[in-house]
Amino acid sequence: MDAPETLSSFPVHRAVPTRWNDNDHYGHVNNVEFYGFVDTAVNGWLIEASGTDVRDLPAIGLVVETSCRYLRPVSFPDALTVALRVDRLGTTSVRYALAVFRDDDGPDAGPVATCTFVHVYVDRTTRRPTPVPDVLRELMASARP
Amino acid sequence: MDAPETLSSFPVHRAVPTRWNDNDHYGHVNNVEFYGFVDTAVNGWLIEASGTDVRDLPAIGLVVETSCRYLRPVSFPDALTVALRVDRLGTTSVRYALAVFRDDDGPDAGPVATCTFVHVYVDRTTRRPTPVPDVLRELMASARP
Amino acid sequence: MDAPETLSSFPVHRAVPTRWNDNDHYGHVNNVEFYGFVDTAVNGWLIEASGTDVRDLPAIGLVVETSCRYLRPVSFPDALTVALRVDRLGTTSVRYALAVFRDDDGPDAGPVATCTFVHVYVDRTTRRPTPVPDVLRELMASARP
Amino acid sequence: MDAPETLSSFPVHRAVPTRWNDNDHYGHVNNVEFYGFVDTAVNGWLIEASGTDVRDLPAIGLVVETSCRYLRPVSFPDALTVALRVDRLGTTSVRYALAVFRDDDGPDAGPVATCTFVHVYVDRTTRRPTPVPDVLRELMASARP
Repeated sequence: MDAPETLSSFPVHRAVPTRWNDNDHYGHVNNVEFYGFVDTAVNGWLIEASGTDVRDLPAIGLVVETSCRYLRPVSFPDALTVALRVDRLGTTSVRYALAVFRDDDGPDAGPVATCTFVHVYVDRTTRRPTPVPDVLRELMASARP
Repeated sequence: MDAPETLSSFPVHRAVPTRWNDNDHYGHVNNVEFYGFVDTAVNGWLIEASGTDVRDLPAIGLVVETSCRYLRPVSFPDALTVALRVDRLGTTSVRYALAVFRDDDGPDAGPVATCTFVHVYVDRTTRRPTPVPDVLRELMASARP
Repeated sequence: MDAPETLSSFPVHRAVPTRWNDNDHYGHVNNVEFYGFVDTAVNGWLIEASGTDVRDLPAIGLVVETSCRYLRPVSFPDALTVALRVDRLGTTSVRYALAVFRDDDGPDAGPVATCTFVHVYVDRTTRRPTPVPDVLRELMASARP
Repeated sequence: MDAPETLSSFPVHRAVPTRWNDNDHYGHVNNVEFYGFVDTAVNGWLIEASGTDVRDLPAIGLVVETSCRYLRPVSFPDALTVALRVDRLGTTSVRYALAVFRDDDGPDAGPVATCTFVHVYVDRTTRRPTPVPDVLRELMASARP
């Protein structure tokens, strides 16, 4: 197994504070919540870095596949950073690799979770696959390793 | 204080199973989740009992006020029933009184929480207040005490 | 590619009604929520079918890996069924294969999403991996294909 | 009606970024989520300003009553600030007044929502009401108007 990646391996970093109700019965951030962090990081980055509200484009990104591996538990009020890069940029789809870091662990620590996230772009009316909009494609290309 | 109301005081009953991640750090369904139960009960009832997808009507209900009092804790996998009635039906707004019951407590038990929920109807385009749609008004009138 | 599986391919079925706030900006149940459905189905089944509150056992299940593929969108108030089977039962871990079905699609329809979910059992105090408790192992063995 | 309060009327301010899945079917942050913001603001403040993990104290705060009025819609990726003050500090309970502000509205804007939140302190074992722990009482007293 390779050495775990650190924050500096990723071109994009997004702050995600935890919330009280992210914690579950066992006192840790529930596994479900990580997918909310990831979805928020990808869409927040697309919106802010492109200066475009991606929800108003003629093509919208539908999530077709996600996964996470949980390496260490975290707990509210931990502050987290979601780091991402574009792993594969196709004509109509994009695959992100993401890692979630706990800020208090410091810059050399490995992630607490690693995730993948795949968007397929579809025409907002017909919902048929359609090319990734140019304004987003350029941005995605800049976030490749 | 009046005797606590029971399920039979309410004309409408909606089943709401709890979910694993409704529980919080203390092992109880978090206070926040009750508002999801209430929102789901009101909208699910409006959609199913009217036979109309309320989201497609020219007037939509915006939530302007909610409240809950928490009387006893519940915990996943408790099965809950949200009971509701229409407390006040105005020209452009409707106020619901709701109570959440734990099914295992039996039919004579008091609620675990009581809540209020107010919808104001607005034109879906202009977002200006507009009369409650007739198809919903009839239904609401039938759920008054 | 194999024919999509139907509900009858799975030994365990759990009802999961959707909630109003499962829907996201695009009017569909958000990808994140499916992980709540899966977590709820697994834990609810373990608790009810074993007659044991799994949270009180000396060994508890920590989620170490999850994934979902989203095949078709669903939307509140759709009623869903989460179907599951045990794919791999190890000494200290168990891997579930799950599929989410939309009830209105009928019994011969394929799933709207397929997911995986892996629990590692750890000692509740030391959090070191420990064998799956016997009461749960028997149940899990009964849910293999 | 009094002029709406601004951020400067409140002694405590907590940043709460929105998340993608806070938005609901109508494209606004769902009414339910505001209670998560409020719960997070109160508990996050108690933990960080007291330097004490409130969950480990012999007395814990149970939420017994909450309410919100929604004045204007907000939408992801809006950044919000939850402002709070202690409205009433009793022997075993504390009532907070909170207001949620949208950062892009600027410092003189009124809130997008106003909320109340009441904690009753109980012995963590017996769950009987018990005095607010001293370490928290001092902090709460400092946040009165």
